[in-house]
Amino acid sequence: MKKFMDRDFLLTTDTAKKLFFDDAEKMPIFDWHCHLSPKEIYENKQPSDIAELWLGGDHYKWRAMRSFGINEKYITGDSSNYEKFKAWAKVMPYCIGNPLYHWTHLELQRYFDIYEPLSEATCDEIWEKANAKIAAGGFTPRELIVNSNVTHLCTTDDAADSLEYHKLIQADDSFKCKVVPAFRPDKALNIEQATFLPWLADLEKVSGEKIDSYAAMVSVLKKRIDFFAEMGCRASDHAFLYVPYNRATEDELEAIFKKAHNKQELTVEELDKYRTELFRFFAGEYAQRGWGMEVHIGALRNNNSTMFDKLGPDTGYDSICDREIAENLSKMLNSLESEGRLPRTILFTLNPKDNYVLGTMLGNFQSDEAASKIQFGSAWWFNDNIDGMREQMKALANLGVLGKFVGMVTDSRSFLSYPRHEYFRRILCGLVGEWVENGLYPYTDELDEIIKGISYNNAIEYFSMK
Amino acid sequence: MKKFMDRDFLLTTDTAKKLFFDDAEKMPIFDWHCHLSPKEIYENKQPSDIAELWLGGDHYKWRAMRSFGINEKYITGDSSNYEKFKAWAKVMPYCIGNPLYHWTHLELQRYFDIYEPLSEATCDEIWEKANAKIAAGGFTPRELIVNSNVTHLCTTDDAADSLEYHKLIQADDSFKCKVVPAFRPDKALNIEQATFLPWLADLEKVSGEKIDSYAAMVSVLKKRIDFFAEMGCRASDHAFLYVPYNRATEDELEAIFKKAHNKQELTVEELDKYRTELFRFFAGEYAQRGWGMEVHIGALRNNNSTMFDKLGPDTGYDSICDREIAENLSKMLNSLESEGRLPRTILFTLNPKDNYVLGTMLGNFQSDEAASKIQFGSAWWFNDNIDGMREQMKALANLGVLGKFVGMVTDSRSFLSYPRHEYFRRILCGLVGEWVENGLYPYTDELDEIIKGISYNNAIEYFSMK
Amino acid sequence: MKKFMDRDFLLTTDTAKKLFFDDAEKMPIFDWHCHLSPKEIYENKQPSDIAELWLGGDHYKWRAMRSFGINEKYITGDSSNYEKFKAWAKVMPYCIGNPLYHWTHLELQRYFDIYEPLSEATCDEIWEKANAKIAAGGFTPRELIVNSNVTHLCTTDDAADSLEYHKLIQADDSFKCKVVPAFRPDKALNIEQATFLPWLADLEKVSGEKIDSYAAMVSVLKKRIDFFAEMGCRASDHAFLYVPYNRATEDELEAIFKKAHNKQELTVEELDKYRTELFRFFAGEYAQRGWGMEVHIGALRNNNSTMFDKLGPDTGYDSICDREIAENLSKMLNSLESEGRLPRTILFTLNPKDNYVLGTMLGNFQSDEAASKIQFGSAWWFNDNIDGMREQMKALANLGVLGKFVGMVTDSRSFLSYPRHEYFRRILCGLVGEWVENGLYPYTDELDEIIKGISYNNAIEYFSMK
Repeated sequence: MKKFMDRDFLLTTDTAKKLFFDDAEKMPIFDWHCHLSPKEIYENKQPSDIAELWLGGDHYKWRAMRSFGINEKYITGDSSNYEKFKAWAKVMPYCIGNPLYHWTHLELQRYFDIYEPLSEATCDEIWEKANAKIAAGGFTPRELIVNSNVTHLCTTDDAADSLEYHKLIQADDSFKCKVVPAFRPDKALNIEQATFLPWLADLEKVSGEKIDSYAAMVSVLKKRIDFFAEMGCRASDHAFLYVPYNRATEDELEAIFKKAHNKQELTVEELDKYRTELFRFFAGEYAQRGWGMEVHIGALRNNNSTMFDKLGPDTGYDSICDREIAENLSKMLNSLESEGRLPRTILFTLNPKDNYVLGTMLGNFQSDEAASKIQFGSAWWFNDNIDGMREQMKALANLGVLGKFVGMVTDSRSFLSYPRHEYFRRILCGLVGEWVENGLYPYTDELDEIIKGISYNNAIEYFSMK
Repeated sequence: MKKFMDRDFLLTTDTAKKLFFDDAEKMPIFDWHCHLSPKEIYENKQPSDIAELWLGGDHYKWRAMRSFGINEKYITGDSSNYEKFKAWAKVMPYCIGNPLYHWTHLELQRYFDIYEPLSEATCDEIWEKANAKIAAGGFTPRELIVNSNVTHLCTTDDAADSLEYHKLIQADDSFKCKVVPAFRPDKALNIEQATFLPWLADLEKVSGEKIDSYAAMVSVLKKRIDFFAEMGCRASDHAFLYVPYNRATEDELEAIFKKAHNKQELTVEELDKYRTELFRFFAGEYAQRGWGMEVHIGALRNNNSTMFDKLGPDTGYDSICDREIAENLSKMLNSLESEGRLPRTILFTLNPKDNYVLGTMLGNFQSDEAASKIQFGSAWWFNDNIDGMREQMKALANLGVLGKFVGMVTDSRSFLSYPRHEYFRRILCGLVGEWVENGLYPYTDELDEIIKGISYNNAIEYFSMK
Repeated sequence: MKKFMDRDFLLTTDTAKKLFFDDAEKMPIFDWHCHLSPKEIYENKQPSDIAELWLGGDHYKWRAMRSFGINEKYITGDSSNYEKFKAWAKVMPYCIGNPLYHWTHLELQRYFDIYEPLSEATCDEIWEKANAKIAAGGFTPRELIVNSNVTHLCTTDDAADSLEYHKLIQADDSFKCKVVPAFRPDKALNIEQATFLPWLADLEKVSGEKIDSYAAMVSVLKKRIDFFAEMGCRASDHAFLYVPYNRATEDELEAIFKKAHNKQELTVEELDKYRTELFRFFAGEYAQRGWGMEVHIGALRNNNSTMFDKLGPDTGYDSICDREIAENLSKMLNSLESEGRLPRTILFTLNPKDNYVLGTMLGNFQSDEAASKIQFGSAWWFNDNIDGMREQMKALANLGVLGKFVGMVTDSRSFLSYPRHEYFRRILCGLVGEWVENGLYPYTDELDEIIKGISYNNAIEYFSMK
């Protein structure tokens, strides 16, 4: 019996250990998709206790607590931080088989030197020990980033964002991690949502231009993309419930924009047309600038309207959609490819049933512009677990060229999430180690290069981020 | 090489053995969803031979026999019981990798002390030995239930059922298993089927009320739910090909009811509206009474119309549907939640592609009303096999709180099916044992509690069945 | 650590080795579905070098090269054969986990006695050695077929094909493999494609009949089926993006045919009606003749229109569709079954999400006409890898009768592809070996028969191909 989460955690063979310790572990981190706050990075505040770090905004943990039957008071309510931590400690052992169990203990080990399993019994001891460690220093955002060996980091930023904190961070030479924005114009595409008109007002404000037409909006967005590029942006990000594909004329787009501007409801067809063409515009702009375009498909958000009204978005009420995606995605990518407007693209799916659809879609649009120009994004969110990551890597291996995979993203909102890269790399080395030990792949020089590539180098090269 | 289906069957590690023999095996059975006949339990007849027990109504075996190429004469036809048994014996070895292979041999071992593999060669010997054992006694329904250590049992009963056999069983103190009905109003929801009007007549008869409107039907159904509750019912059950969600007014519902009453055909939209609102009514009633609501999604039934005309439903001509379910299911649960009418709910899918959809849907509607108020039901019917059960448990573990899982259901029509609980528990202990032995989870006190919980305690608590 | 792809490749247990070496390896090959050219078999030309054999038409390798970032010049362009081979050698190590890696090395081992991994470093040595071997002889199509122990082979032939090369091959007694056509009338069903009218002209030419109506076309097709039958055909093949089911009258069919004949565009409804009824016609004809009908569902073809214009179909721009298939497939099979027109049918899916849908659909339409009359076709194309084949076999085992499975198809365009049968058999023996060694199945006499059956005998019997 292996010891619980020891040095060889997830490294099931000698080859896995060799690959991890010789190659993967030594590589720094390029965190090319996350939701860390540039403001928090800039302000670099000292956290008060482990409950703030762990439970302040982590909707993964909130969901688990609700699923156990914990009262909301101890989750997002007015309980004390200690009470919330205690509730989490009580839930922990029942999360057997959940990645939260491993993330929690990896974070306890790596940041707090705590190797005991968290439970109701160990709660108080761990609470004391962890908080003493925090008080002793090393837990500000920048310290956590630098000590986690993160060399580059892309935040996720609204198109109307002034990027003021990015400017401040970049002006500070003492911080050794390169922090750049990523362009995420969801609010532009989600024209039917309550956020659209306020966002449009923000966009007018930040640009100083009047936006009373689709054409005017697109013109301003183009300038925003230029501004993001000046700020070092190399990546964009889009979220789709499903991939739309319904082409529209300029006149139709103007009519749709006008309706939204007048707060009239749009039909599904109008929404699809608007999103199709605006997305096509964005893609073309990214292609011109050599950016990587991330497309996240399949999150069904804000399912619980009562809790949405109380807590807002990103509070643990999202799940997985199951629409058909193959045909529209094919048409969308083909329309871009045939006009020379297809950027480097990373396709993510939240529904594992789509793994083989995405894994084969890639191959239709590759070119010598980049190694694996169209990428299959790593297992993400609900799939960010041992099974999900193995399935995504095996699908990519079976259907594409795993050796050129750009690897892991944290998608994180927490500065303590970097052990997820370690988790990913251990799983990668475990999987490849099995293949080698079972005689399915020889141990060649290229293998070390492949592991280093997937851990770090491939993403640096893909986003031209040197 | 391990011996064939010996004491350690499916227990691949020492931890698995410890968990199974110390915890799982010792727990009784709460069979909270099955299709056993209360009449047969009451009448408690002696079976004639093993063919009657095995092949009298088991459409799983019938399908396998047809798939091998056996003539229907030896399946549901007029062959002798011995001939049917012989045909099954011949098919058996070719069912390699099929759960029927394991169920058959578990039943031979546990009920007949027969440890030889069944095949054409061993057919006669096993036929003699098993029938002698049956003749020696211990094979009536009640003996099989009690000897299988079943403490509680929910049958599945139509809303118009008089529950007369439940009354008779409950009146008999000598029978130590608590048998209660579960409320399954499929015939009310399936308004488009030929069964609707005859069922309505039954409902009028059992209630003594005239039912000439939707409102009248709902009023009677409410009284039926009260009656079921008096009879100890704690669970309801619904089957959906797909989850409908199309809201309707009272007037629309009355118009739809009238059309059905007049034998006019209903549109898909009308059916969806009717089923949406009637289901919403039911759910609210269950919520008020603290019942658990089971929702079985995705069975595509009666695919072979020729054989349906000959043999009727539940004869082995069903398969798996593949509709999209996420969005309607989300809307349905949200509509109930926002009105405070969402009961404890157990979501089952027949299509394993939905595992991650269901596994994430749960998390949107949990509360402190129960531990894992919204449950992901165990792998069921076509998924009730080693792969399916492992996949369901891994999905639940990755996405929710496995430690609060209410566990296995037999969904059975046979009094010999209880070893399926053993099968499930061995698979559970095998899976958890792997995690522990691979260093992914520590062996804590909570682990014993978790195994006991999933085996029995969680379901008892969930259905408030003390 | 096992040696790289040695004698025991994929045979992870002693039982697996015994099953493979005693049973599977000794069986000949019946290649009942492939895309080998009868013309090439007849002409039996000597290949120039390994690049011609490997890279002349293998769009699997082309996709991998594009995915690595190789310029099209070195794939389908005007580079030399050596340059193309060198490009492939460079890509090879990065295809870790891809079946191409195993196929390539199996072919190097079995046909060239080369046991070194292919890479940029070994490229030149292998290029020399392999070409010397080719020059020494044994690499013509017929030599490769006979030396691979192929006893029967079905090519894939258009309904308008004259089968002239089949006649020539069959007239040559010296060639010991029985080569017969398989009937694939895709061009008849794809009435909306540019290929339809030219194909109709071909059909008129080959039949000597004027075809100006649906009825006339069907009448000619019936004669073509008779002609194929005379030529020894025992199998047909159909490809569907999705399974249509929309019934039509004779008049509707004539109107649709007329529109197509006049080059008018057809609606989706018209296409579905036409394809439903024409397919139903074909199925009935096959049933009468005892043919096996292969149905390949879910290929989304020619996704990249720019490259389609340059290179045409079957050049590596296909992927996987994700439509719902269960309900229409059920209705289609039921409509045939209820009219006594359902032939032996082999259902293939390109989307692994459908494995459980197909695996359960089979069971609805079995009969004693053949062992597993309705078959679940082996993992195919993008699923033709270790994971895909294991998943398909486990699904079939769990849901049907694995012992009567008709086994592997190469679906190949290359005469070097026969080691894929070995790959399949090793995976089969590996899987079954695990079951036996884990005590899930006893080692019985039937087991040897099952392995031999799946390897060869079952397909011979299923297609009545003695």
